[in-house]
Amino acid sequence: MLKKKTKYVVAVAGATGLVGREMVEILEERKLPVDELVLLASEQSEGERIAFQGRNIAVRKLDRNSFKDVDIALFSAGPERSLEFSSFAVASGAVVIDNSSAFSMDPKVPLVVSEVNAHSLEKHAGIIANPNCSTISLVMALKPIHDKVKIKRVVVTTLQSVSDTGKKGVDELAQQTVALLNFRDVKTKVYPHQIAFNCIPCIDSFLDNGYTREEMKLVNETRKIMEDDLIRITATAVRVPVFRGNAESVNIETETKVSVDEMRAILAEAPGVMVYDDPQKNLYPLAIDVTGKDEIFVGRIREDESVPSGINLWILYDNIRKGAALNAVQIAEYLIK
Amino acid sequence: MLKKKTKYVVAVAGATGLVGREMVEILEERKLPVDELVLLASEQSEGERIAFQGRNIAVRKLDRNSFKDVDIALFSAGPERSLEFSSFAVASGAVVIDNSSAFSMDPKVPLVVSEVNAHSLEKHAGIIANPNCSTISLVMALKPIHDKVKIKRVVVTTLQSVSDTGKKGVDELAQQTVALLNFRDVKTKVYPHQIAFNCIPCIDSFLDNGYTREEMKLVNETRKIMEDDLIRITATAVRVPVFRGNAESVNIETETKVSVDEMRAILAEAPGVMVYDDPQKNLYPLAIDVTGKDEIFVGRIREDESVPSGINLWILYDNIRKGAALNAVQIAEYLIK
Repeated sequence: MLKKKTKYVVAVAGATGLVGREMVEILEERKLPVDELVLLASEQSEGERIAFQGRNIAVRKLDRNSFKDVDIALFSAGPERSLEFSSFAVASGAVVIDNSSAFSMDPKVPLVVSEVNAHSLEKHAGIIANPNCSTISLVMALKPIHDKVKIKRVVVTTLQSVSDTGKKGVDELAQQTVALLNFRDVKTKVYPHQIAFNCIPCIDSFLDNGYTREEMKLVNETRKIMEDDLIRITATAVRVPVFRGNAESVNIETETKVSVDEMRAILAEAPGVMVYDDPQKNLYPLAIDVTGKDEIFVGRIREDESVPSGINLWILYDNIRKGAALNAVQIAEYLIK
Repeated sequence: MLKKKTKYVVAVAGATGLVGREMVEILEERKLPVDELVLLASEQSEGERIAFQGRNIAVRKLDRNSFKDVDIALFSAGPERSLEFSSFAVASGAVVIDNSSAFSMDPKVPLVVSEVNAHSLEKHAGIIANPNCSTISLVMALKPIHDKVKIKRVVVTTLQSVSDTGKKGVDELAQQTVALLNFRDVKTKVYPHQIAFNCIPCIDSFLDNGYTREEMKLVNETRKIMEDDLIRITATAVRVPVFRGNAESVNIETETKVSVDEMRAILAEAPGVMVYDDPQKNLYPLAIDVTGKDEIFVGRIREDESVPSGINLWILYDNIRKGAALNAVQIAEYLIK
């Protein structure tokens, strides 16, 4: 458990990545009581400097000894690094908030979206997991609905941007797009196929059941966070040629019939959720509008007449911010409170 | 009814559009017995020349007198032109195959995908409707499944390319992409929002029920073609920054439980359907692979454990070809046979 202090030593492991940089920005923006910020990354980023509260802090190499005096360690350096180094952080007395999938389904590790299940932070063994971005946005919409009208089943198709994959995903889309517009050959390094002007129905690797890891994360993490293994959910995850901002096309079947107006009201009251839904004015959430926004945005709220009580939603969120960095920092805020 | 001849006078109205040009190519490629090809378009395209069977045929202005001696008139010039001119074609003795939505839900007008309901061509009053592209691909997969294991419900999200909108859609995506890569402002003319590096959950205009016309077409046309008003279906249609090739993420609930292998077998036997599904080799249908292909491609076939008998599919098709021009020409082939 985190010892209460007036100011904390905070480490960011993976500080030079897209999510790590966003974490640093958000720590400053939300005025967390940071005594000292320790920026950690792989050897090749050592010495790079990142601005924080008017100073340029040098990035150090992440190793076993990086966590001396650290109170809170935010990890966003991939599951391998989390598995390798988080135990050293915990042994040094730090609480780890891990943005990778390394511990997300570990029953001893709380998997937290603060608007949804902050209460699960009361019990942890030094590690707290940040859910996958698609899960965060999905449960933020599903939980208030489930509480009011009980969800029976969810069918979701995600349209996920390349920044999910970090800077290398962004670079690949940009490079391939330029190559194609100049009639040059496309090189694929990051994704299994061309992503420019193409959608790839595969995120992460395939499991034996034909689903991708990304799809099963969405199913399993949602059940864990909502503390309801009976919620029936099936997912298709698609990578789309968008730089930032992930979408989810969500079909929800509820126990109790709910009108579109009631659904709008439920979502409008939900913490961290913005209803953005005026089709007659062509207003619905778009990737290009959500960058830098803290909320998840819900629009295209329509009754689904194919079941006695069904609703379709279109969700958008900044995958780097609420989908990753912001959610991790919000967990830190809860620990400090 | 079409009078049987050895060769036919065929007109293409909207000959200079993406679909019109594809129709001309397919007429030649599939060796239809064309005696004379009459190319029709708006005044501004008059005199343009399009190659057919080694000749360059001049485009004429579409008007009330364009259809003298025409046996088959393929319309792909938008619903307004179809409504304005098709009756003159019919009055001249031509059979109209209309690619617009003008007549699709008219009970007197057969709505035909030749692999699915060619029998409905036996009765028509001079006009036959070509379904919307999303419907064509969807029913080609659904019909063989429905015949074997009866479909209860379908939840579909479409990811549709800009060529659906014709050349102006293609130009808008290209121009906006170039502008963004050069840090210039984006101009939107064709779509309500930026389409480059963005997905727009709106195709065509909104109806009072919150659905778009495109979404309701998919619902209503599917029921009409499958001759089953009880099939429950709900749709979300999304425009994606892809030039050509439309995708559909499809969740199907069936009456009878069906395994993935059985589903693969059903689809593999279906006319015009190619199963392309080997996730371990990263093989699944992609937009960049389907251009110029006649078939619809189905992959990502997985059991959906959220219902007693459910399957997820990922469908891809060339929206200009099987989604429009090819299907229209195949209807003409049936009439001629």
